[in-house]
Amino acid sequence: MENYETILQNYLELIEQRIQVCSQVQEPQTLYEPIHYALTNGGKRIRPLLAVLGCQSVGGDPFDAIDAGVAIEILHNFTLVHDDIMDNSPIRRGKETVHTHWDIPTAILSGDAMVGLALKSLGNYFNLTNFGKIIERFTRALVGVCEGQALDMEFNTKEEITTADYFKMIEKKTAEVIRASLVLGGLCAGAVERDIQTLDIFGENIGIAFQLQDDLLDMIADQTKLGKRIGNDILEKKKTILILKAKEQAESDEDIELISKIYSSATIDNKAIKKFDSLFQRLGIYEQVRKEIDSYVEKAIETLENLPRNEGTKMLEFLANKINERVF
Amino acid sequence: MENYETILQNYLELIEQRIQVCSQVQEPQTLYEPIHYALTNGGKRIRPLLAVLGCQSVGGDPFDAIDAGVAIEILHNFTLVHDDIMDNSPIRRGKETVHTHWDIPTAILSGDAMVGLALKSLGNYFNLTNFGKIIERFTRALVGVCEGQALDMEFNTKEEITTADYFKMIEKKTAEVIRASLVLGGLCAGAVERDIQTLDIFGENIGIAFQLQDDLLDMIADQTKLGKRIGNDILEKKKTILILKAKEQAESDEDIELISKIYSSATIDNKAIKKFDSLFQRLGIYEQVRKEIDSYVEKAIETLENLPRNEGTKMLEFLANKINERVF
Repeated sequence: MENYETILQNYLELIEQRIQVCSQVQEPQTLYEPIHYALTNGGKRIRPLLAVLGCQSVGGDPFDAIDAGVAIEILHNFTLVHDDIMDNSPIRRGKETVHTHWDIPTAILSGDAMVGLALKSLGNYFNLTNFGKIIERFTRALVGVCEGQALDMEFNTKEEITTADYFKMIEKKTAEVIRASLVLGGLCAGAVERDIQTLDIFGENIGIAFQLQDDLLDMIADQTKLGKRIGNDILEKKKTILILKAKEQAESDEDIELISKIYSSATIDNKAIKKFDSLFQRLGIYEQVRKEIDSYVEKAIETLENLPRNEGTKMLEFLANKINERVF
Repeated sequence: MENYETILQNYLELIEQRIQVCSQVQEPQTLYEPIHYALTNGGKRIRPLLAVLGCQSVGGDPFDAIDAGVAIEILHNFTLVHDDIMDNSPIRRGKETVHTHWDIPTAILSGDAMVGLALKSLGNYFNLTNFGKIIERFTRALVGVCEGQALDMEFNTKEEITTADYFKMIEKKTAEVIRASLVLGGLCAGAVERDIQTLDIFGENIGIAFQLQDDLLDMIADQTKLGKRIGNDILEKKKTILILKAKEQAESDEDIELISKIYSSATIDNKAIKKFDSLFQRLGIYEQVRKEIDSYVEKAIETLENLPRNEGTKMLEFLANKINERVF
């Protein structure tokens, strides 16, 4: 295990270096400074790691997938920059968001250019037979994540959201990009179609687990490590899996009234967060979600049995368990 | 000539059909309705026409370049949707802009997805040897147009802008995408590098002429056909080629004071437009810009001598002259 941490650390350093090169500030600085800022804000770089390990797991050279992983990481950060404008979020990972630090036009434009920088990073594969498939999958992730964000924004005004709607949304908004990380890694290795599909299914399950964990951590994370206030989703009235499950299961008038605040136009104050916390505890929502996360991670790990048992697959399993155990 | 109009009309119909297919409204409708709206607002489709003719001029089948032309048209319209947010423009081609008709988050997100749809359209070429070059050039246009918009936004706050700065800006903001149209057309035909370069130079000159013409038409166009008020650039205090030339040439205190309004924080009212008009007339700015446009168009047409004299090149020449003569 210790050994895996060292190897992953080594990959992470190379990924970080490559991101530095891609986001180097050049003219016009009004465009590239915010890009550099957005790309070097202490992200965990899970997606490029998944690309590198995806490549390694199907027999490829892990270093061959770094540019693909970086492309996906840039794509992911582009969505954060634009989502933060749409969601009016002032803070991300403890730092001002781009549109708060600069302004909305700057954040729109630097986000746009980041899609170009992601494509540029993929351009390094243009000699590969799989280049067409790489671009196709990247495109699918780009369109998918936009569709997911549109569904998420629809949630703000829709009254009736089921957990099925929720899963449809996170499939697009979160899982598409994570799946793309793994598939691109596989494509860089020239993997056979069957292995690509395995990576895809692994990514889908990890992606869903990741989003459920995000929703859960909003309430139960270590505040000092989260980089934002606990209960932020409640204050922003997000229809998270916690809320949707609570809504389905609440029976008392008091509970139903509390939940209805998320759906009303009234503002929610800090004090309400504690009430939601005790509601979630009382209904056992945290344990339910925890179990659901476990089952997605388990399914992901089972999928890996279809791949050769090598260092790559072992580290994918290690990473899947780590994601499950993360506390921020 | 009549014949060329008919052929171009035929191309335009196919382009329009393909754009309809690409922008078909599907789920989530909150994403695809604004995309459809933005893509079917009566654009002149110059860029896809240039792609199709670029392909034909180097011996390719013009119909092979339609998907590439459509990709560039979608890219172009994505920049319009986002630029309109950044510039606070309420109206485009006589219709409400996307962020005015819906809201800013919707306009940001549908613009983002349009980049994905453009890439999807290029995905149809993934079997071509030139696919890598097609993606590379598209990426260059995407990054370039963002850099150009950043330079343009810098103009809003910068005091000293030279005509050299202006040309550097329009090279990126306008010419990059037009050049890409022609180059992509050539790449679809599998043209040799020398022909690609010729198309590139033709596109660069046409692109610059196109932007100069845009600046000119803002003052002298037929109001009913322009789709926006005459003198809009003056009211928005844009540092157009007209203003920059007038600034270089104005000598009287009165003229210098009038021009300084563009650089000040004071708002400019409708009455000022007439004053600028008479200033431009008195200094001969309109003729100077007209001559400059002529010379860029001439240079573009001369470049075509490096290509075989076929229907494609003849129509490129025809289109270049048409762009020069356009009145809106």
